[in-house]
Amino acid sequence: MRVGGASYRTIWVGPEGVSIEIIDQTRLPDAFEVVSIETTAAMAEAIRTMKVRGAPLIGVAAAYGLCLASVEDASDAALEEAARLLVSTRPTAVNLRWAVDRTMRELMAVPPDDRPRVAYAFAARLADEDVRACERIGEHGANVLSAIRAQKRDPSEPLRVLTHCNAGWLATVDWGTALAPIYRLHEQGVPVEVWVDETRPRNQGYLTAWELSQHGVPNTVIADNAGGHYMQKGLVDVVIVGSDRTTKNGDVCNKIGTYLKALAARDNGVPFYAALPASTLDFSLSSGATIPIEMRDGREVHAHPFTRAENPAFDVTPARLVTGIITDRGVAEPNEASLSALHPELA
Amino acid sequence: MRVGGASYRTIWVGPEGVSIEIIDQTRLPDAFEVVSIETTAAMAEAIRTMKVRGAPLIGVAAAYGLCLASVEDASDAALEEAARLLVSTRPTAVNLRWAVDRTMRELMAVPPDDRPRVAYAFAARLADEDVRACERIGEHGANVLSAIRAQKRDPSEPLRVLTHCNAGWLATVDWGTALAPIYRLHEQGVPVEVWVDETRPRNQGYLTAWELSQHGVPNTVIADNAGGHYMQKGLVDVVIVGSDRTTKNGDVCNKIGTYLKALAARDNGVPFYAALPASTLDFSLSSGATIPIEMRDGREVHAHPFTRAENPAFDVTPARLVTGIITDRGVAEPNEASLSALHPELA
Repeated sequence: MRVGGASYRTIWVGPEGVSIEIIDQTRLPDAFEVVSIETTAAMAEAIRTMKVRGAPLIGVAAAYGLCLASVEDASDAALEEAARLLVSTRPTAVNLRWAVDRTMRELMAVPPDDRPRVAYAFAARLADEDVRACERIGEHGANVLSAIRAQKRDPSEPLRVLTHCNAGWLATVDWGTALAPIYRLHEQGVPVEVWVDETRPRNQGYLTAWELSQHGVPNTVIADNAGGHYMQKGLVDVVIVGSDRTTKNGDVCNKIGTYLKALAARDNGVPFYAALPASTLDFSLSSGATIPIEMRDGREVHAHPFTRAENPAFDVTPARLVTGIITDRGVAEPNEASLSALHPELA
Repeated sequence: MRVGGASYRTIWVGPEGVSIEIIDQTRLPDAFEVVSIETTAAMAEAIRTMKVRGAPLIGVAAAYGLCLASVEDASDAALEEAARLLVSTRPTAVNLRWAVDRTMRELMAVPPDDRPRVAYAFAARLADEDVRACERIGEHGANVLSAIRAQKRDPSEPLRVLTHCNAGWLATVDWGTALAPIYRLHEQGVPVEVWVDETRPRNQGYLTAWELSQHGVPNTVIADNAGGHYMQKGLVDVVIVGSDRTTKNGDVCNKIGTYLKALAARDNGVPFYAALPASTLDFSLSSGATIPIEMRDGREVHAHPFTRAENPAFDVTPARLVTGIITDRGVAEPNEASLSALHPELA
């Protein structure tokens, strides 16, 4: 996607072919800084501190972390240790484990000397796969959004979309998940306006507003508290979010606060969609109740000395509140039969 | 209530008997500063900029604003102009108009020379009435909370209350509305713990956490996004909030985001109560749909140059999501019949 007119992905291999370059998302939107990651430990730290974030992106970042590990020490033991470190950084998004497991299978199948070459080739393939998956999510999602727009009383009005957190290109390698359909419609000349939840405590809404603005998509930041009010007033046509893990029954785990917006959408007859690559589906869990919810440092909420804080990073939106799940394969209903029909290899 | 061991109200007459002293709530919780308000214009500004805030308190503050006006110029025309100015500061809370109308009736009934004396006496009466109303809300509310605690599976566990915004003593003259029952239980030795919503964009949750901590009530600040998750996990026994205006049918207008917590409470079988003095009831409106919702400056949300913000300050929780309305008269069901039975003078 574009930053100041130039095209970027969120992660790429440095000019010397070993280090990994990322956009430091903790500095956005105030500063656009590219950082070079030189070691597995530095990649783990970048994931943990959310320099790279977003379920699809941290999967690819972890694969690149194993590339760095294979250059440092390509032995089985060293790579297994690196895999453990990378997977431990963030517990909720399933993409991290999925990408590490897939990369490790490739590496363990070849002798240590070949592992760096295989690792970089495979991580590049995962990155390209993510870009293609997000492009397809954009296509399927644009059809969903167009159909919703077609039902508006005044078809000349812009489509008003509400989103929570950042599920844009910054959360993936390129294009995004929840925002991909919006970019696609915008490129087709369809008027789309986005209500952007601020998304406390980490304020990922400003990443969303920044990237939408870079692409010329009109957007307005609102406090997380405000979305229900806008839905009551008829000012939201559709809610679309990403997901960090979606279980077999269609429960959608996503950034803390998503559940509240899903409740408000249901209460006001507003369709609620999750958009996600198949790598986010976890068919090993029958419902969202057992997804590990990351508890982050309370100081991300506040540092006042007179009281404490708690900081759960995700919540689970039950399938009953989800209108549809948009994946790179199409649009599924939030239930096992429909998700399995689209993704038979997972069933 | 107590600050650093000393007892305070939130508003009082200065030592010379004319100026009005307030706690500057825009400086809390970082600094505790008492400010002297010398003119009607300064009082209007203090209300508009939320140096004083909370529906009950701004009612009393406006009455004291008319005291200052009566000292400046006690003519009918000047007082009517002052009343218009004070009422225009914030549109949503009905207490402002209620207090100004009541005070003006008293002033217009006496000759201009008597008005300053009558004004100060009447404002003091309104302040004392508010304190007594909040004490009674505390009694009735403590009964409600005790009954909820008695139903807990493990009765030795603390009662876990979630609240939004600040409806504590800082929002009233003393005691608070939503927090009054909590203070009462705490003084009785009942273990109560409070989940405090941060309440973006103005962060009134830190006022709540600060005043609870000053009184030794255990509390934890959470992002506004997190309350639904805690309810899903069974960690919230009851939600209790204040109100800026409650209409005849039991619709509760309160700080933006309250509606989302009411939805989550209903979805998880958690009782949801509003606590308010009768001065907050507006029987002239048949539902919350026509309450004017204050739109505040978007810069309270953010000041990033690349996008805009919108900042509605209140939302309406429909009566169907409200378990009960605790007033100084008792506990009403959220409907006209029950509210009228408790407050026949309004019907």
